[in-house]
This record gives sequence, C-alpha cells and structure tokens, in this order.
Amino acid sequence: MLAGGALALGGALAGAGAGAAAAGRGTGESRPQPPGYGVQKVPFHGPHQAGIDTPAQAHAVFLGFDLDGGTDRAALGRMMRLLTDDAARLTGGAPALADTEAELAELPARLTVTFGFGPGFFTAAGLDDRRPASLAPLPVFSIDRLQDHWCGGDLLIQICADDPLTVAHAQRMLVKDARTFARLRWAQRGFRRGRGVQEDGVTQRNLMGQIDGTVNPAPGSDVFAGAVWAEDGPEWLRGGTTMVLRRIRMELETWDAADTRAKEFSIGRTLGTGAPLTGAAETDPPDFAARDAFGLPVISEFAHVRRAHVADPRQQIFRRPFNYDDAPAADGTPDTGLLFASFQRDVAGQFLPIQRALAASDLLNQWTTPIGSAVFAIPPGCAPGGWIGQTLLG
Amino acid sequence: MLAGGALALGGALAGAGAGAAAAGRGTGESRPQPPGYGVQKVPFHGPHQAGIDTPAQAHAVFLGFDLDGGTDRAALGRMMRLLTDDAARLTGGAPALADTEAELAELPARLTVTFGFGPGFFTAAGLDDRRPASLAPLPVFSIDRLQDHWCGGDLLIQICADDPLTVAHAQRMLVKDARTFARLRWAQRGFRRGRGVQEDGVTQRNLMGQIDGTVNPAPGSDVFAGAVWAEDGPEWLRGGTTMVLRRIRMELETWDAADTRAKEFSIGRTLGTGAPLTGAAETDPPDFAARDAFGLPVISEFAHVRRAHVADPRQQIFRRPFNYDDAPAADGTPDTGLLFASFQRDVAGQFLPIQRALAASDLLNQWTTPIGSAVFAIPPGCAPGGWIGQTLLG
Ligand code: HEM
Ligand code: HEM
Repeated sequence: MLAGGALALGGALAGAGAGAAAAGRGTGESRPQPPGYGVQKVPFHGPHQAGIDTPAQAHAVFLGFDLDGGTDRAALGRMMRLLTDDAARLTGGAPALADTEAELAELPARLTVTFGFGPGFFTAAGLDDRRPASLAPLPVFSIDRLQDHWCGGDLLIQICADDPLTVAHAQRMLVKDARTFARLRWAQRGFRRGRGVQEDGVTQRNLMGQIDGTVNPAPGSDVFAGAVWAEDGPEWLRGGTTMVLRRIRMELETWDAADTRAKEFSIGRTLGTGAPLTGAAETDPPDFAARDAFGLPVISEFAHVRRAHVADPRQQIFRRPFNYDDAPAADGTPDTGLLFASFQRDVAGQFLPIQRALAASDLLNQWTTPIGSAVFAIPPGCAPGGWIGQTLLG
Repeated sequence: MLAGGALALGGALAGAGAGAAAAGRGTGESRPQPPGYGVQKVPFHGPHQAGIDTPAQAHAVFLGFDLDGGTDRAALGRMMRLLTDDAARLTGGAPALADTEAELAELPARLTVTFGFGPGFFTAAGLDDRRPASLAPLPVFSIDRLQDHWCGGDLLIQICADDPLTVAHAQRMLVKDARTFARLRWAQRGFRRGRGVQEDGVTQRNLMGQIDGTVNPAPGSDVFAGAVWAEDGPEWLRGGTTMVLRRIRMELETWDAADTRAKEFSIGRTLGTGAPLTGAAETDPPDFAARDAFGLPVISEFAHVRRAHVADPRQQIFRRPFNYDDAPAADGTPDTGLLFASFQRDVAGQFLPIQRALAASDLLNQWTTPIGSAVFAIPPGCAPGGWIGQTLLG
C-alpha cells in the first residue's frame, strides 16, 4: 500500500517529457537536462474525473463558490458546459476559448481540473432527491474550531499542476467563467514537494515533518476502485465519488516544544523513516498487538495510525492532501497546516467513522485543529463532447 | 544579455543532482528519472551573499521585520550571528541548531538565505553615519498607491529554493530566531516556473503572459559585477549591494480587455516570442530608431523597454522578480502581480532614474500599480566562522 498515489503513473499520463535540452545546471560537467515537465498532460476525458487517481501534483488550489440566487438547473448546465470546455482545453495545453493570456496555457505540467457539487448545488438545481444521502455538512466534532469562511460551498473547482504559473492561469480562466453564476467563497492554495525535488513515488513529508501518505489505497488497484468509485447510490454519480476537504491547522508552536518520543508516540510511527513503532521500514505493517516490557501496547491505543486504521478495504478512504503555509502573524505565529482532501464512495460509511474515532481520542489532536470543512459530490468524468455534471443536469 | 540569471549556473552550484532513480513517470516506457533537485546546494559562504547572482529558484519568500525598541548594536550583532548560523546550516542541508523539524532540512533544493538592512537598522545600531547615502524610502511616485503594510522594514530575509516545503521550513526556523529581536511586518510569497517545467535558462513568462527577464546583466559577467557589487561608498558594504523590493499589482481585469496589439505596443515586444517589435527573435536587440511607413517609431517613445533601457552598463539594474498570486476577491478580482526585486550598487544612481522615467510615461502603467516599496542594503557575504553584517556591526 506504500505511497499508493505516487507510484501508479503509467495509465494516467500522456505526452511525457519533451526532449532533453542542452544547457546543464550542474557543477560544470555537462549532465543531461531533465525532460521539461511542463509539456506533460493528464487526459481530461474518461470514466472518472482526473485529479483523483492522478499522482498528486506539486501545486493545488481548491476554490469554493456560492451560487448566485436564481442559478437554476438550466443555468447550472450552461455553467458546467462552459467550465468543462475550459478545463478540457487547458489540461490539453491549449488556451481556453476566451483565453486572454493564451501563452500561459502552453505548459500544462500535468494540469487537472476536478469539479464537485456541494449540498446547495442540488437545491439550486431543484434536484435534492438526487443528492447522495450522506452529502451534507459534516457534524461538528469536539475538536473543531471551524471558521465559517473556510466552510461549505456549492461548487468546488480543484486545480492541480506541477507548475504554479499553470495553476494561477487556469484559476484565472475558470474564476472568470464561473463568476457569472457564482461568487468565490474561499480559495485555498496548497503545495507538496516540487516535482523532481525527490524521486517520483517517494512518500513526502508534511510540515510537521512526518512522512505522510504511507497507507493509502493504490490508484489503479481493486482496493482503490472499491473504496473510491461510486457503484451504487444515485445513478448519476456512478463512476464518481465524494470529497471531504478539511482545513486543519498545525499547532506548530506546541508541536515544536514536544520531544521526538512524544511526537512519534502520537502517530505510532517514527519521524526518521516513517516506520511503525513496531517495525523498521516505512512499508512494514504496524503490529497493533505488540506490547513492550511493561505489557503496554507499543503503538498506543490513542495513536493516530491505530485510530485511523480501517481493516476492511471497502471502508478505506483515499487521502490526497496538500500543505498550506500562509503568512505568519507579526509575533511569528505560523499559519500552517494541511488541506486534507479525501475521496471515498460514501462520506457516512467511510469518512465519518474514521473522523469520529480520531475526534474521540487521537493523540495528534493536541497539535491539530480543524478550522475548515466542506463536502462535495464529485461527478464521473465525461467523453469528448460531453460535460461534467451531464449525468445529473442533462 | 539573454536571460542572464538563468544561464550562468556553473559556478554557483555545488552537489548537483543525486543518482537517477528507478521508477519512471512517463507513458509506460522506462525513461531515466531526472536527478533529485532536492539535494542541490548553493554555497552559503563567499565574498557575496547567495540569492543574488544565483539563478532564480522556483519559490521565494521575502520577510520584512521591524526591530523591537531597545535592539541596539550589540543585540543586532547577536541576532545576525544567530541568523547567519541558521542560514549556513540550512542552505547546507543540515538542521538549524535548534531545529525542531530536522527532517525537513534534508533537501535544501538550492536554498539561499539573503539578509538586508533597511534604513531603521542603522538608526537602531547607532550607525546612521554608515548608512549608504541613498538608502532611504523611495520618493512616492505619481503611479504609486502604496499600502503601508507592504512598505518599509528594518530587516529583510529573502528565502529562495526550488522546493516550497524547504522555503516553509527555513522561514519557520528564521522567524523563530528573529522574533526575539523583531516583529514580522510583512511576508510576501512569490513563485516562478517549477524547476524542470521548462529547460533551465529559458526566460520565463510573468502572469501578464509576457516573457520577462530578457535584458538583464548576466551573473558572472563584468557587466553584472560593475552594476551590482558595491565597490565604493561605505567601506563595510564593499562586495554587497542594495535591493529595491516593489510589490506591483497587475490590473488583470483591464489588461485582459486590451487587445494583443495594445499589449505588445505597451512593452515594445511581442507576446509570442518576446522579440522586440523591430526584430524576430527574443535576443534581437531592439532598434529604437526604426520607423514605420507613417514615420512613427515602431517601438513607441512610451514603450516600457524604451523607457527602462539604460545604455551605460554601469547604470543598469539586475532584476530578480517573482510572481505573486493571492486569493481573488469574492467577485473574482485577482490579487496578482510581481514581487519586483532589483539589485544595484546604488539606489539613487541606478534604480531611481529608471523608475522616474517609467513613472513619467510608461504605457505599461495603465495596467500596473506599485502597492509596496522597500529598500535594503545587502551586506557582503562572509567566510566560514564569520557572519553577515560583521563588517558593519562587528
Ligand atoms: C493535520 C492533520 C493530520 C496529519 C498531520 C496526519 C498525519 C498522518 C500520518 C503521519 C500518518 C501515518 C503515515 C501514513 O500512513 O500516511 C497518517 C495516517 C493516516 N491518517 Fe492522518 N493525519 C491528519 C489528519 C487525518 C484525518 C482528518 C484523517 C481522516 C479523518 C486521517 C486519516 C488517516 C488514515 C486513514 C491514515 C492511515 C492509517 C493506517 O495506517 O491505516 N488523518 N496520518
Ligand atoms: C509589474 C511590473 C512590470 C512588468 C510586468 C514588467 C515587464 C517587463 C517586460 C515584459 C520587459 C521586457 C523583457 C525583458 O527585457 O525583461 C521588461 C524590461 C525591463 N523592465 Fe520591466 N516590468 C515591470 C516593472 C519594472 C520596474 C518597476 C522596473 C524598474 C524600475 C523595470 C525595469 C525594466 C528594465 C530595466 C527592463 C529592460 C529594458 C531594456 O530592454 O533595456 N520594470 N519589463
């Protein structure tokens, strides 16, 4: 299950690296130039939307919109046709139809654009009966300190690419076309390691320093398909999924003050290698039954990985998080955390039990605070000529 | 003079790319993995600070601090010793002395940390007599709409790396050590193309879509040395330089409404290739004397490149800008622009004449608005065992 997202690349990529260029950037020896990542494309069309089983790109922005009053089913159809057309062009490395900075569309850098519908989208469309049963604002957990301006939203646009200029340009084009129908509620910019900073497929660290993403269904696997792609529930959502987006602040001031043992104990894995406290390598399966000389569990009952662990593969969630790091306060207090995005067939059956178990008694809660929360139905993909949302609105 | 900053790489880099890894990220064929950029280091020690003639990294943050009352010369010396030690370790891929997320220090990704002293630094140190004569807040130009919270600052820390996690971690460490002495006034995050998205050395586009950086002194050249490194003026600054940092908003709403001809006319170069309107290739020198069939100059008297052009190489400035793109407003208005950083021996002799010429009648002013402004003396580098600022404070 190691680093699932990052390894299964074969299927998802078209048009890989352009020819190696001449100028070296090394210490004088002429070393071959890495391929230009910029030209790499992720196909837009297909049974599922891209940006879910796509190995996480280096940069992301999550945009949440409130629909304007009067945006009815017909208007939503027009909006989604327009946005689909933009997304299909931009991800293919072509300018959007009304693109005013066409030159910035040239390097898609694995751009993906993924659309989601919040609870209010169904109400606006007059289609509350087609809303997945568990698609509703999450209950407020005792650990939550939610800020309204990071919560909710009727429409989600997730934009990811290995290049931040590409993300900025796609955002500009999509926001311009969406704003006829909706107002921007929040924009959350996130990042992971720069593409090529580490080898592809290595599990990355988050801003607490932890290796984050080890145990995750592997895209392309049966476990992934069974956990993520909707196969029952509303007909229109088949091949789609749901996303939970939590903005989780890291309390770095107190985390920094904790010692390494306490930090590792809270997760149940080491900081150095990410190995479970019962193992030696990152990929070793944790031994939850192991006890120390005093008869106490080596991996605490309250360790994050034990609380979050789900044995039944069908009940797992697929995590695809990004880091955020906004400007610190004047006194240096950081504004740092995780844009925790998870995909699962069903929010109630998969995400909620894990979140409840964590909220009840996860040691990590001492240092993490959910401050934003939103849920979206992620419609299936579409074929060329089709549009995202057609199965619901069409 | 093409893309000066990005080509002269040989000297500045140590410890280039680690061995190629196994897993391919292409369309199935096994292609060699690019070297992990993460291990690349830029030497910290030397006659000049790094982060000036270093080919611009993909990510940057500029931090401006106000010194606390009572931070005198001795305290400033302690602060700069501490910060220098942090910077030397982190840029070398080692944790800072009091590093609480040591694992995040492992991949420097060409990290550079560059320190600068604003006018107030000299006053606090009781050394106003050693302040370079022209190191003062810039005069307010007619085009300026300065916001106080983006202006000024007694201490600058510029942090750049090809990886955003590396920038975030270095920022955290340096802010923690600086805050005993100073409060953060502003933090400005900027970016360029992801490393490897394009070939090294290609001139990049900014968020107006323009190819930006064509005419710039080439690091390592005599022109660069003559324009950038201080060789007269205060003794302590020799080998150092000055930085002007302007936060310049791009008025993308109206820029998007302009047609291509108007856009190209305002710069004097084409959007497609960046060639001057009198030439065919990016590197063709503009022919400012050329006239069209009507006898009018092909490159307008008010075109940005004509207004900004400086013939005397000693009077040129070295531009090292980054893009910014913060969250758009609810109605979709973007918060986008340039963190325009320029380095020059002398602010009054080099930057000001260009800025005055631009403020007076640059066509580009229709679509750009300076909203932040700061100036810093950038002390020379130091040898191992020394510290940045020692020539002033030591
Ligand atoms: C800032 C907040 C969080 C941080 C820093 C964090 C960090 C981690 C780390 C370091 C691991 C171990 C390595 C790995 O397998 O990825 C992990 C595992 C996991 N986390 Fe989190 N996590 C956070 C929030 C959450 C939330 C909100 C959920 C779901 C509600 C969650 C679900 C999981 C799951 C399912 C696993 C794998 C457990 C297993 O071993 O089976 N995490 N997390
Ligand atoms: C958002 C603001 C700005 C934008 C978008 C911008 C854009 C550009 C572009 C596209 C070029 C032509 C390509 C090149 O040689 O790089 C250029 C050239 C130049 N710009 Fe700017 N610029 C801005 C602000 C400034 C400012 C504030 C200054 C200095 C006060 C400046 C100084 C220069 C210089 C010296 C050149 C080269 C002129 C020559 O050909 O000799 N620019 N700029």
